[in-house]
Amino acid sequence: MLDYLCSKFPRQGEKPKVVLAPAKDQSVIDVLLKAVKLNICRPVIIGNSDVLAEVAQKYRPVVSDLELIEQAGDFESIKLAVKMIKENRADILMQGDTNRKDFLNLVLDPGKGLAKRNSYSYVSLLMSPKDNRFTMITDTFIHTLPNLQEKSVIVENALKLALPLKIDRPKVAVLAAIEKVNPRIPSTVDAAVLAKMSERKQFGDAVVEGPLDIDCATSREAAARKKLDSVVPGDVDIYVVPNVESGYAFSQMLAFVGKMPHAGVLVGTAKPVVVNVPFIGFDEKVAEIALSAMLL
Amino acid sequence: MLDYLCSKFPRQGEKPKVVLAPAKDQSVIDVLLKAVKLNICRPVIIGNSDVLAEVAQKYRPVVSDLELIEQAGDFESIKLAVKMIKENRADILMQGDTNRKDFLNLVLDPGKGLAKRNSYSYVSLLMSPKDNRFTMITDTFIHTLPNLQEKSVIVENALKLALPLKIDRPKVAVLAAIEKVNPRIPSTVDAAVLAKMSERKQFGDAVVEGPLDIDCATSREAAARKKLDSVVPGDVDIYVVPNVESGYAFSQMLAFVGKMPHAGVLVGTAKPVVVNVPFIGFDEKVAEIALSAMLL
Repeated sequence: MLDYLCSKFPRQGEKPKVVLAPAKDQSVIDVLLKAVKLNICRPVIIGNSDVLAEVAQKYRPVVSDLELIEQAGDFESIKLAVKMIKENRADILMQGDTNRKDFLNLVLDPGKGLAKRNSYSYVSLLMSPKDNRFTMITDTFIHTLPNLQEKSVIVENALKLALPLKIDRPKVAVLAAIEKVNPRIPSTVDAAVLAKMSERKQFGDAVVEGPLDIDCATSREAAARKKLDSVVPGDVDIYVVPNVESGYAFSQMLAFVGKMPHAGVLVGTAKPVVVNVPFIGFDEKVAEIALSAMLL
Repeated sequence: MLDYLCSKFPRQGEKPKVVLAPAKDQSVIDVLLKAVKLNICRPVIIGNSDVLAEVAQKYRPVVSDLELIEQAGDFESIKLAVKMIKENRADILMQGDTNRKDFLNLVLDPGKGLAKRNSYSYVSLLMSPKDNRFTMITDTFIHTLPNLQEKSVIVENALKLALPLKIDRPKVAVLAAIEKVNPRIPSTVDAAVLAKMSERKQFGDAVVEGPLDIDCATSREAAARKKLDSVVPGDVDIYVVPNVESGYAFSQMLAFVGKMPHAGVLVGTAKPVVVNVPFIGFDEKVAEIALSAMLL
């Protein structure tokens, strides 16, 4: 996934600045510096003096523009990083080694952070090793049980990522328990509305279809058997899940059972935010920085 | 409209029994007896002795099977009529000269009446004098501001009437303020869901399209201008309105300004009910009996 993204990455122009806060764990710092070496970005690292001394010793010889800012304490480090982003002194925020919930609470604070309430969502990106095709699953992290309004934002956010990934006319499957519309089952109702919004071109060139059960979404034959005439079944770029549990299960299954390279990205914030998710592999973490840069 | 309906009416077989209650006003009795003369139905008339004597004198010589039942009091008359329908001693209930609200409260009582809650709706039927084409508008009377579940029943009920009227593959326009889907405007959301239900064949052969504004519903060109690709615009058989005010205004305008013959019919009750609406003309009231008979 990383190689593929790097090959698609623009080689020219000034690279965006990624600010990492708080820098504590060397492995997260290594991720950032790998991205720098791959010419994806320029680094800003915020942390206490001990950590920074170690970084300087290890990387000063090999990285020319290493910007290190001393700031003890997680809370202050993150606040400073957000401030830098807001003042355009950095372009991408990267979570260091700190509690994810606290980090996001600070970063996504509706008043002081980098996002409006309900503007952002999380996209899990998987790549098929067979044909380098990307598949997105969303929202796998932020919205526990999104309502219609939130789902519409979730679709829009995923489409923002489809653009730099050069997915033409993205095909979006809105999953629900069944493919029939049942007014008593909100997931089927919401899916129907999103599909109609797409018909009315409210999602641009994308084709959003739903409600689809997993069957109809993944198999053109199953859809045909159910007399469901649509270009989406069997050729889905983006799966929109009705709730976070199913999304999490779905993406984890593909990543771990299906062995698909697997990264995640927060979309819809004013500037990209790279969240530190422990089970994402090293190269995929570097890929997340590349993905974030593509969103700029 | 009446001539046209009569020409479509089966000439053979035993005619259904219409029970009129309470019989007071001669003009309503005249409507029923006109339908009897046209061989649409057989009459049962419930009223007090004075009224019945008058009816007997006027109609006994010309109507062979005149069934008269003496019962004083509106309330008792209606209750008896409902009982007769429930016991299959009559097939269609016709409102006589009594307060409409009281009549419907008795007839539509969820426990004792002829309908389940939310199973019925009112369809206004108009006929174009130019090409004898029928147009339905619904719900113009029962549901003030129907929710999605109710709108789905409203569509189904209108389709029940399309069948005997021989409207093949009925085209249904679900009207809303705008043709885009806006999650904050329930009429657009409900319309989108109904349209998707139709795509999933949940309304059989009918094509339900929405949201459509009046523009897009009535003009193929307007729809094309808005890049709305559908067979429904400009060729609508059934208009589903978002609320009773707009439906009432819409049907009245066509009836009075557009001079279209105009009848109404209650659909979705266990047995048909002919409601006495004052501004419907004599022939159209007879037509309402014919329409009700078609629903049997």
